[in-house]
Amino acid sequence: MRATMLYGARDIRFEDRPDPQIEKPTDAIIRLSATCICGSDLWPYRGIGNFAEPPTTMGHEYCGVVEEVGKEVRNIRRGQFVVGSFAASDNTCVICHDGYESSCLQREFMNRAQAPILRVPLADGTLVATQDVPPKGLIPSLLATSDVLGTGWFAADAANVKPGATVVVVGDGAVGLLAMLSAKQMGAERIIAMSRHESRQKLAREFGATDIVTERGDEGVTRVKELTKGIGADSVLECVGTQESMMQAIRSTRPGGFISYVGVPHGVELEGAGLFFAHVHLHGGPAPVRRYLPRLIDLVLNEKINPGKVFDLTLPLDRVAEGYRAMDERRAIKTLLRTDGTN
Amino acid sequence: MRATMLYGARDIRFEDRPDPQIEKPTDAIIRLSATCICGSDLWPYRGIGNFAEPPTTMGHEYCGVVEEVGKEVRNIRRGQFVVGSFAASDNTCVICHDGYESSCLQREFMNRAQAPILRVPLADGTLVATQDVPPKGLIPSLLATSDVLGTGWFAADAANVKPGATVVVVGDGAVGLLAMLSAKQMGAERIIAMSRHESRQKLAREFGATDIVTERGDEGVTRVKELTKGIGADSVLECVGTQESMMQAIRSTRPGGFISYVGVPHGVELEGAGLFFAHVHLHGGPAPVRRYLPRLIDLVLNEKINPGKVFDLTLPLDRVAEGYRAMDERRAIKTLLRTDGTN
Repeated sequence: MRATMLYGARDIRFEDRPDPQIEKPTDAIIRLSATCICGSDLWPYRGIGNFAEPPTTMGHEYCGVVEEVGKEVRNIRRGQFVVGSFAASDNTCVICHDGYESSCLQREFMNRAQAPILRVPLADGTLVATQDVPPKGLIPSLLATSDVLGTGWFAADAANVKPGATVVVVGDGAVGLLAMLSAKQMGAERIIAMSRHESRQKLAREFGATDIVTERGDEGVTRVKELTKGIGADSVLECVGTQESMMQAIRSTRPGGFISYVGVPHGVELEGAGLFFAHVHLHGGPAPVRRYLPRLIDLVLNEKINPGKVFDLTLPLDRVAEGYRAMDERRAIKTLLRTDGTN
Repeated sequence: MRATMLYGARDIRFEDRPDPQIEKPTDAIIRLSATCICGSDLWPYRGIGNFAEPPTTMGHEYCGVVEEVGKEVRNIRRGQFVVGSFAASDNTCVICHDGYESSCLQREFMNRAQAPILRVPLADGTLVATQDVPPKGLIPSLLATSDVLGTGWFAADAANVKPGATVVVVGDGAVGLLAMLSAKQMGAERIIAMSRHESRQKLAREFGATDIVTERGDEGVTRVKELTKGIGADSVLECVGTQESMMQAIRSTRPGGFISYVGVPHGVELEGAGLFFAHVHLHGGPAPVRRYLPRLIDLVLNEKINPGKVFDLTLPLDRVAEGYRAMDERRAIKTLLRTDGTN
């Protein structure tokens, strides 16, 4: 097959690689129905952070049809349509039982999914199968459950969004937009989107945003306070991962309120005394998408939600480099990569 | 009257000050049954942190009998025995209603309580009266509810201590010790006290600690992991406020677990990515003691708990400087100051 490789900053190549094989008896091999590019892929794409020696494989969002399973796989069968999380997990350890599958004691982060065929470790724990192979039209939304929706959902859940709540979402990337959709599903009454991009504001409103704040920094905080009786929001969902966005979140939250943060923070330092007197709850980390997958897949199959709308660019997989460029230059929110016709 | 003043590092004086008077119609004046020195008083005593220009008044823990109330005070009457929090609060604003009285929109931090007479602002919101004037023997424990027990209780509550939980308490000061008592009251099954002082370990066990870890840093983390099936504790209560203690807490918590921090952090910086992958919940701030006061006072009056045991040194108020010295040199856990005979 051919697969996506990162050779260095802004150097994505789609090139020959060996077909994945069963390596452990708990593995499955799946043929992807589609894959996509994550906002978090842009960090290594831009050469930011500490990553493995190049070239590195890329991609961690996937859904598709099972081609083969290892000898110890019990619940997943050849021919089934499956979705998995970006973090493979056994779903049996004490951490998984507690709902933190993305910190599973056997966790493996997926990183080869921008390819037509994928090996999934710990298949029984990681994959969720649907009853039937779903119609093609639902593939984008099902793919979204694998990470971007699951992460947005965790953002809302970790920030304790409750019916009637006033919520702020910092960031209008794909995760931020789906955090708005998630907050809406959880019954938030008011959803304030911090967004400066008109095309994204439109989608934000479609997903449930009731107010848009275009200001940042002190002015952004002032605007949020004006919208929240002077005290700040009940729940603030930080969906960017920078120092600026984190401070925006902390300063926009009411005392006793809840902040979630769901993107790997880059260069973020939190000053203890400031956080102390802000009096907030803080929770985040790699989203335990596996916990939410059954429910999210149901919501998609029953057409209650349409998270696939975040994909505003679709390309065949072999044009993956173009997809990265479009997201890097903010011409696209999120790129879906079609695998049909790619081998 | 004479009252406690801090003139500079390690320079405590007990000297003539004007008697407090009603200043606002919502004030009350109380004659203290006892007062005490807080671990947090040691920061300015040692000249650490940014504090007001000296000389400054000191003390924020108090209980006593009401002498006079302002014209707008409705619920508190002359002659009643009352306890209040270190943070005066109106108990009517939206933040108070949410249980965060220590961030009340009208909050005033108390700082004149190491004196025989005290003006309490927002008396109706701040003070909790008992039905009768309690027996003298209960005064130390009732005084403890005002801050040190209330703060330990918040530590346990904010770290989500539940029946059956495995809890770590970082710090064996008076707050840490009462955090152990609180965790025990909330049904924790295992309470691991990180403590290096033998006399404090004894009290820790009395208050409910089941295990003592004397090691710190990497070794301390290793010991906690050994005691918690390799994964860390469900709830970790950080009761010190330094970088070292905060890192100890973060590294001792299981993924998905809860950390509370209840002392003003001094020089603490939290690195975002490390916190992210630790996957913990973090909550802290000035303890909303007012929320807990009615329950804590009941527990004391019914002799279910005896938090007054943290006072291992009792001095007459006019020897307050000696009390500071004993705590600074760690000869005393906490000093109670007798007000009888002091005017």
